[in-house]
Amino acid sequence: MRIDIITVLPELLKSPFDASILKRAIDKGLVEVHLHNLRDYTDNNYNQVDDYQFGGGAGMVMMIEPIDKCISQLKSQRSYDEIIYMTPDGKTLNQKIANSLSLLENIIILCGHYKGVDQRVRDMFITKELSIGDYVLSGGELGAAVLCDTIIRLLPGVLNDETSALTDSFQDGLLAPPVYTRPAEYKGVKVPEVLLSGNFRKIEQWREEMAHERTQRLRPDLLE
Amino acid sequence: MRIDIITVLPELLKSPFDASILKRAIDKGLVEVHLHNLRDYTDNNYNQVDDYQFGGGAGMVMMIEPIDKCISQLKSQRSYDEIIYMTPDGKTLNQKIANSLSLLENIIILCGHYKGVDQRVRDMFITKELSIGDYVLSGGELGAAVLCDTIIRLLPGVLNDETSALTDSFQDGLLAPPVYTRPAEYKGVKVPEVLLSGNFRKIEQWREEMAHERTQRLRPDLLE
Repeated sequence: MRIDIITVLPELLKSPFDASILKRAIDKGLVEVHLHNLRDYTDNNYNQVDDYQFGGGAGMVMMIEPIDKCISQLKSQRSYDEIIYMTPDGKTLNQKIANSLSLLENIIILCGHYKGVDQRVRDMFITKELSIGDYVLSGGELGAAVLCDTIIRLLPGVLNDETSALTDSFQDGLLAPPVYTRPAEYKGVKVPEVLLSGNFRKIEQWREEMAHERTQRLRPDLLE
Repeated sequence: MRIDIITVLPELLKSPFDASILKRAIDKGLVEVHLHNLRDYTDNNYNQVDDYQFGGGAGMVMMIEPIDKCISQLKSQRSYDEIIYMTPDGKTLNQKIANSLSLLENIIILCGHYKGVDQRVRDMFITKELSIGDYVLSGGELGAAVLCDTIIRLLPGVLNDETSALTDSFQDGLLAPPVYTRPAEYKGVKVPEVLLSGNFRKIEQWREEMAHERTQRLRPDLLE
């Protein structure tokens, strides 16, 4: 899989891709992530990428021309399955969307910044608009990092233990059951007996009950 | 405001706090962000912070002892308004929660990793569990960065233009209207006439209509 990220702040995205699971996936050659600095696609003297909005109002708007140039250059080199714009008014990302995006070959992720991009960018180039949640961020960069993380960890070979992702919350529509590790007793608080029983049938049953109970209590909407 | 982040991967969080608005807020002294490496709070030879889960199954679990030590040390130095655990089965973050957290003085954010933390950490120390969305990440670090971004940009003095945050999506329960900047015509596609009219009453009216139309079309749930 290849992911091209277009941003005015490539330096913000450096460390998330340089640590942990994302780094391992890149090092193993399971995914390529390319950061493109939008300022490299300007032809004005100040590498200007944003301008005041028409009609007045606070906040700058990202101009269409540098974005067009960057996307056009990428598209001239290979074909892309999706050109995704990270924006709070996009479709809200969920595990199902992450699962389906993880099957694609080439995607572009455009990070908004300031007040967002000129609407014509969205009308002319973007094939999918995604939000990571109902809150506002300084820019699309963290959203892009989150999106990449959700996708990349699903690629075969990325996680050490293939079964680990399958038992995560949301993959079966339920929240994960509680987990415990050593010591069996900490400051007088013990782990549930059943987990120490060695009876795998009972343990499975307990976990399923707890997953249902927790989902019912915390996220009944997931059961609808 | 002071934010203490407890993590096994402080290096992952480096660049998001070293760029753009978060860096400016820190440089201006409007917020202090302290990263704590959980491995500094272990007393075993391997700086081990995780262990196999009781009852078997894929994925490691973060142990209670180093977390207890780190939180206890922080709490001995000042009092905290919230100790937040980032987890996919937490309450889903939204703008209202971000607004209310931005009013606090001291918070701790604990990042889960692997299969999550020992349930007793959640029972004994955590005052609030938050998720940034219905998808699974490699760890809580990106969630913590997202949470910090939503909070910090709301602190007075962080954004250059105070009115900018108020016109963001979600702050008034509506998605933001489309925005446009120069050029007025790009490859034959023009910006809406009204934005060039100079008639501020009409522009405001158009923006309100577009915000309602867009919310109705893309996120009718926000209007309920």
